[in-house]
Amino acid sequence: MDLFYYPEPLANLISSLARLPGIGPKTAARLSFYMLHNPEDATNLARAVDSALTHIHPCTVCGNYTADDPCAVCAGAKRDRHLICVVEQPRDVVALERTGEYRGLYHVLHGVLSPIDGIGPEQLNIKNLLSRLDGINEVIVAVNPTIEGETTALYLSRLLKDLNIIVTRLARGLPMGADLEYADDITIARALEGRRAMDN
Amino acid sequence: MDLFYYPEPLANLISSLARLPGIGPKTAARLSFYMLHNPEDATNLARAVDSALTHIHPCTVCGNYTADDPCAVCAGAKRDRHLICVVEQPRDVVALERTGEYRGLYHVLHGVLSPIDGIGPEQLNIKNLLSRLDGINEVIVAVNPTIEGETTALYLSRLLKDLNIIVTRLARGLPMGADLEYADDITIARALEGRRAMDN
Repeated sequence: MDLFYYPEPLANLISSLARLPGIGPKTAARLSFYMLHNPEDATNLARAVDSALTHIHPCTVCGNYTADDPCAVCAGAKRDRHLICVVEQPRDVVALERTGEYRGLYHVLHGVLSPIDGIGPEQLNIKNLLSRLDGINEVIVAVNPTIEGETTALYLSRLLKDLNIIVTRLARGLPMGADLEYADDITIARALEGRRAMDN
Repeated sequence: MDLFYYPEPLANLISSLARLPGIGPKTAARLSFYMLHNPEDATNLARAVDSALTHIHPCTVCGNYTADDPCAVCAGAKRDRHLICVVEQPRDVVALERTGEYRGLYHVLHGVLSPIDGIGPEQLNIKNLLSRLDGINEVIVAVNPTIEGETTALYLSRLLKDLNIIVTRLARGLPMGADLEYADDITIARALEGRRAMDN
């Protein structure tokens, strides 16, 4: 990125923006000029960043991002306290909550096992999970269907095997709107494997 | 955008980001989670925004964004001081400088005439231009080839007509890599109109 033509504080702004995922140098320059042209939006953004960094932290119970502690789900009076859904990231909690289909508790690992990146069980929020299992009937392992996700799911299921807790995974299959012609082989294989009788 | 599932400081960060051009609610959420996960990048960004807003301002001579006053171009010892190139926005200065083909001065209007949006000559950096014309031989009007740009160019050329200054515009024609088949009619018409004899 050639920042030679920009005065230094502007060049710094451009390169700070370009460090964000999915923001290339051209977008970073465009956003920077927008901010100089709209200082109120820019100030609000800087204050919102500071405020989020100050007030948002992982819930000490479940690990989800929250401003209060414990978080709204952990403190929720109407949640099913016999069920924990384990996810990789806080954004996965939002995805599940949005469906309105889940009323149990969550546990956020903040990552998945990845020996190649030096991420073992110690680097994840797993110890806290073990201290929450009293009264839990089922743990849904809702990590993403990737190699690392599969490894993590297997690790957790072995860890919980002897504790009389049912460990389940999200169903794999064709997503809504998918086209068999373009689906990958593994997705089709999993969809076949997991086929269900029709209610008729 | 449904921010119901996010704690308030995080919801504020998402909506502050989503106010930026080209950033939709999904990207804003993704960037916010990235920032919480990478607080150093987030802090650097907030500081860079503050610093740019504090130190960057329009050059009192040409109107380009600068940290010094006058800006590096206006203060440049090697610039041709008989030539001014008038552009709409500071980003246009960068585009022209990058070519390395232009050694004159600049003048940034910070917009174009647009009566429908209430932008007349008073709202643009035009008065300052008139005070800079001493010793100037040529003014290149490098506004964009849009309706408003054409209007602005015409206005400026009439304003400068009686001052013994040559007023020129950037050539219109086919851009590099263009395909006649897909070029629009006006571009082809302008390219025909501006055809040049080949040096052979």
